[in-house]
Amino acid sequence: MNPSTLIGIVASCLMLASVLLLSAESSMSFVNLPGLAIVVTGTLAATFISYPLREVLRVVRLVGIVFRREDSYVNDDIKELVDMSRLWFKGNVRAVEKALQGTRNPFLRTGVQLVIDHTKEEEIIDLLRWRIARLKARELAEAHIFRTMASYAPAFGMLGTLVGLVNMLEIMNTSNLAEIGPRMAVALLTTFYGILLANLVFKPIAVKLERRTEERLIAMNMVLEGIALMSKRRLPSFIEETLNSFMANYHDEIREVSPDKSPGNKTPGGNEAMTHA
Amino acid sequence: MNPSTLIGIVASCLMLASVLLLSAESSMSFVNLPGLAIVVTGTLAATFISYPLREVLRVVRLVGIVFRREDSYVNDDIKELVDMSRLWFKGNVRAVEKALQGTRNPFLRTGVQLVIDHTKEEEIIDLLRWRIARLKARELAEAHIFRTMASYAPAFGMLGTLVGLVNMLEIMNTSNLAEIGPRMAVALLTTFYGILLANLVFKPIAVKLERRTEERLIAMNMVLEGIALMSKRRLPSFIEETLNSFMANYHDEIREVSPDKSPGNKTPGGNEAMTHA
Amino acid sequence: MNPSTLIGIVASCLMLASVLLLSAESSMSFVNLPGLAIVVTGTLAATFISYPLREVLRVVRLVGIVFRREDSYVNDDIKELVDMSRLWFKGNVRAVEKALQGTRNPFLRTGVQLVIDHTKEEEIIDLLRWRIARLKARELAEAHIFRTMASYAPAFGMLGTLVGLVNMLEIMNTSNLAEIGPRMAVALLTTFYGILLANLVFKPIAVKLERRTEERLIAMNMVLEGIALMSKRRLPSFIEETLNSFMANYHDEIREVSPDKSPGNKTPGGNEAMTHA
Amino acid sequence: MNPSTLIGIVASCLMLASVLLLSAESSMSFVNLPGLAIVVTGTLAATFISYPLREVLRVVRLVGIVFRREDSYVNDDIKELVDMSRLWFKGNVRAVEKALQGTRNPFLRTGVQLVIDHTKEEEIIDLLRWRIARLKARELAEAHIFRTMASYAPAFGMLGTLVGLVNMLEIMNTSNLAEIGPRMAVALLTTFYGILLANLVFKPIAVKLERRTEERLIAMNMVLEGIALMSKRRLPSFIEETLNSFMANYHDEIREVSPDKSPGNKTPGGNEAMTHA
Amino acid sequence: MNPSTLIGIVASCLMLASVLLLSAESSMSFVNLPGLAIVVTGTLAATFISYPLREVLRVVRLVGIVFRREDSYVNDDIKELVDMSRLWFKGNVRAVEKALQGTRNPFLRTGVQLVIDHTKEEEIIDLLRWRIARLKARELAEAHIFRTMASYAPAFGMLGTLVGLVNMLEIMNTSNLAEIGPRMAVALLTTFYGILLANLVFKPIAVKLERRTEERLIAMNMVLEGIALMSKRRLPSFIEETLNSFMANYHDEIREVSPDKSPGNKTPGGNEAMTHA
Repeated sequence: MNPSTLIGIVASCLMLASVLLLSAESSMSFVNLPGLAIVVTGTLAATFISYPLREVLRVVRLVGIVFRREDSYVNDDIKELVDMSRLWFKGNVRAVEKALQGTRNPFLRTGVQLVIDHTKEEEIIDLLRWRIARLKARELAEAHIFRTMASYAPAFGMLGTLVGLVNMLEIMNTSNLAEIGPRMAVALLTTFYGILLANLVFKPIAVKLERRTEERLIAMNMVLEGIALMSKRRLPSFIEETLNSFMANYHDEIREVSPDKSPGNKTPGGNEAMTHA
Repeated sequence: MNPSTLIGIVASCLMLASVLLLSAESSMSFVNLPGLAIVVTGTLAATFISYPLREVLRVVRLVGIVFRREDSYVNDDIKELVDMSRLWFKGNVRAVEKALQGTRNPFLRTGVQLVIDHTKEEEIIDLLRWRIARLKARELAEAHIFRTMASYAPAFGMLGTLVGLVNMLEIMNTSNLAEIGPRMAVALLTTFYGILLANLVFKPIAVKLERRTEERLIAMNMVLEGIALMSKRRLPSFIEETLNSFMANYHDEIREVSPDKSPGNKTPGGNEAMTHA
Repeated sequence: MNPSTLIGIVASCLMLASVLLLSAESSMSFVNLPGLAIVVTGTLAATFISYPLREVLRVVRLVGIVFRREDSYVNDDIKELVDMSRLWFKGNVRAVEKALQGTRNPFLRTGVQLVIDHTKEEEIIDLLRWRIARLKARELAEAHIFRTMASYAPAFGMLGTLVGLVNMLEIMNTSNLAEIGPRMAVALLTTFYGILLANLVFKPIAVKLERRTEERLIAMNMVLEGIALMSKRRLPSFIEETLNSFMANYHDEIREVSPDKSPGNKTPGGNEAMTHA
Repeated sequence: MNPSTLIGIVASCLMLASVLLLSAESSMSFVNLPGLAIVVTGTLAATFISYPLREVLRVVRLVGIVFRREDSYVNDDIKELVDMSRLWFKGNVRAVEKALQGTRNPFLRTGVQLVIDHTKEEEIIDLLRWRIARLKARELAEAHIFRTMASYAPAFGMLGTLVGLVNMLEIMNTSNLAEIGPRMAVALLTTFYGILLANLVFKPIAVKLERRTEERLIAMNMVLEGIALMSKRRLPSFIEETLNSFMANYHDEIREVSPDKSPGNKTPGGNEAMTHA
Repeated sequence: MNPSTLIGIVASCLMLASVLLLSAESSMSFVNLPGLAIVVTGTLAATFISYPLREVLRVVRLVGIVFRREDSYVNDDIKELVDMSRLWFKGNVRAVEKALQGTRNPFLRTGVQLVIDHTKEEEIIDLLRWRIARLKARELAEAHIFRTMASYAPAFGMLGTLVGLVNMLEIMNTSNLAEIGPRMAVALLTTFYGILLANLVFKPIAVKLERRTEERLIAMNMVLEGIALMSKRRLPSFIEETLNSFMANYHDEIREVSPDKSPGNKTPGGNEAMTHA
């Protein structure tokens, strides 16, 4: 399970538990089922009107993603790609095809397949770019559903509070003032639920999905670059170095803590960059 | 009818019914016709000043779209386009023209018409791109009307509440305090209406229109790509594979659940991609 | 006069009249001249500090635009342009020059003038693009003044309310509570004025100006396209068809209600599109 | 002094004076030095943490700009540029160099210097574009400081009000209710200060700086265009006409009030445009 | 230590100290540990759910950056680059390699390494552009974490206040009214904490990180330009002049205070610009 999400959920539960058990007079004073129903039903209703059914149902799957561990396969992908480019450079098309069947990255597979089919380089790039653009559009649209829900939830929380206030004010002339406090407390709870849902559920999920998409786009662009080089029939060692150089993650591009003292790194770019990766 | 919109409307009605019937003392306490009039009249007045008459009237038609089922014709379009490219490849211009009269997609028809008229490729692309750009601009402008209305509605809701409060405070010195509660309740109702209209009507419609435009742009770009290939006189089988590859919808571009085991898919790109579509 | 603006103003007046006459105890309870002065003076003062004098004064002229009927001259412009291209194609430069003196569209005139002066195509395009870009920049800057005013007005409304509240609270210990209500009502009125000005005046004007600019940019780009074709010495009939095709306004690019049954439209693109325009 | 800023300041002072002298019970009730200190200190502290010292100190100079009269030197620049291009066209390099020493526009000087040094056209454009981009980045960053301050000020105003409310509520059980009013008034004053600073000082300055940058970018792009033409060794008269045409400021690109009746304007573009400038 | 941050922190502390010691009845009335816990735990929990663990932990390092003095190494980098280009121009590859080992800027090192390895110019530019783009994406993502935290903090502050209000209102019917004041004060403190954290900690850090990234991108683009010129084998003196011209920081591109009187600066562009740097 995703460790960061786990920490976040445990911390949220602790916070809510302490709010409910310690600060409140009775633990029931923060439970207001009709208010919760207004917030949840309203948010869902607005979401259903906003999006096609197909996309709303996808939301369930997306929540699962946030809990799942997101591993980075970039280094595996580079290795696979370099291995295939080596086979391809030797002219061993059959071996590349066999390796292709074992790869689990469909984007990489399509790209290499196009290369060994001798498709023109610009057409390969066009097709792969289109797929990157579609993945980006689709995943950002998914994250946007949660952004939209995060904007609906506090609005319906406020609606519920207005309902509670109206009900409270209606009876103000018939009852004693002592009844007003608890009724107003109940009214405020729906705002509480709306803000809680927006800031602990919908917005964090949206941010996580957006960050995940960004990571994926970097990985896919790297594969795209490798396939372009492979299509240009560059040396496999050059491809490896270039890709490693692309992935090298400097802590500070402006100033290192100490200059590199290792002598004699003459290989083109990548090699030099790798020693710092 | 659009199933998602239906679910949303039913859920909204249930929510509002339970608010009115269950929580309120009397079901009339949430009805405040002058307040509703301020919100609706104000929002409409501001919208009329903001947009030309022609565009405001179009809004009625747009609301209908949200209720209508939006089918995707992408696969039909690909089939039609590939069929025509086959006829065109065989040099059977008359048959293409006949097929053109049967197609219901005006964008596709214009494109193919230009191809069989031997218009230069870049001019075809220019004209089709212009039409895509215009559709995008027009539909986003339409969605924007609802975004604008969604920002006016709560503002006029708040205006109505201020009117109610001013009226209430004016008489505070002459009447007894017991009358204040119900009057304040009535004042708050206009804010309630404003938020309700913005979050259950205007904003969801705007989001749905925006999503629909995005889907359409993807479909039109796909047709544009097919027509460009047809104009380049590519093989119909290549066009079919490329378009199918464009439309292939991977669940996860980074990692499949299980690698593809089927051997021997050597056809250029599209074919391979189709097996996963 | 612009019919949409007229409807909007009448509706606003009705709304305000009903608020003033029907709901209020006395029609004077919504008049608070010092409060109105704070909102208007504050908004104007901030606007004067924000913009050069020249631009603020232009605002008066801009308000007039919102009231004026905005006619679309696109079809006239296409006709004029096609007529001139016909004369130009025949080599009748003198007739083109005569026609030029009759045209009322300065953008069209400059473009055709450059064509008959045998300026290079890319230089004509550069100059006309610059003029489109300048018009866009200038008109969006003008609309932005109203956006800025729409953000100042509620802020100064709130300022006025704070002034009123502070004055009210200052005397709370010396006077009886009955005086608080009317004083608070007066304080709230400035917020009322601020929201009213922002949402019924400044924001609608800004939106209308922005929409108008968009329409103009479409028309100017269309003229630019026609002049580019004229400079390339295309057939006048081709120019006409292309421009009409550009302006064709499909209700639905994806699916028509019924397919086109008219046989034998073979002319390049434009003609076919015109039958649906 | 900038007349617009002057009007704005006078209007602000009148507004504040009338608020202080006329509406308030005593003119001291709007003075709350601790509250003002919280807003100002907080805003400055947050600004110092946000920006490097160098940039914060530059702010003082920027405030001066808002007061200074901003003259437009565009016409002078065009004249200078055309004069130099005339000398340059005659091959009189020495005279151009002399003229260069008299020019006060460093951007123009660098450009012409590069031209007479026979630098390649694309390298001149590259260097001048970089300088335009840097000026834009630097000036927008400066305007952004004020935008940031405009967002800090109301936040610290609200903080001060919370401080005042907490202090007031703390003593509510020990003192009589009559003391609450004035204390709450004092608390609200910090919000008043925060909104006032943001909307009458920081935001207007930010807007003015942004507008000024836009004007400058137009002027610099115009000089860039002229230097590009000079580098291409175009006729000085052509350069003059093109630049004048660029600067021509039509009131309405779509429809003039009356068509141009003057006959026989055949010179390339610029000349025709100049008659309307 | 960063002088600007230091000033900001001292000013914040003074402001808070004066708030706590002078204005409050007792210095303890602004301490509300449960409220602070809600704000901090909630903000952190939402941040952990929003971002992968790796990125959240990086935050600690980022806070350090804000305190560290940010020196500009641009002039050193230009000097190093020009020295190396001189050696490279003389064909002394061994000396360049030696100089490379001493440089502390990894971006500069990779670029020069690629040049002396005779990599094609466009490939060098591609690789260096990718690294600039990645640095930009990574650093803006880091700054975005703080922007997100700045939006969570006030939301959880408001949540805490709602909790406090609900608790207070629950007991309103059982206790005397005198107890309400202090309880409400405690409730408001969480809003106070949320706004304080957002505006004095999270938002300033985000702004500072963003500004720092902008400065770095300018420096890296300058190095990129120098390496491109070196790869084109331009004269070292030309490279030096161009880079210095790029870095020249005019106070005013439009009008200098006094025109340059120094005669005879004929060297290409850079030289002339340097005299004003």
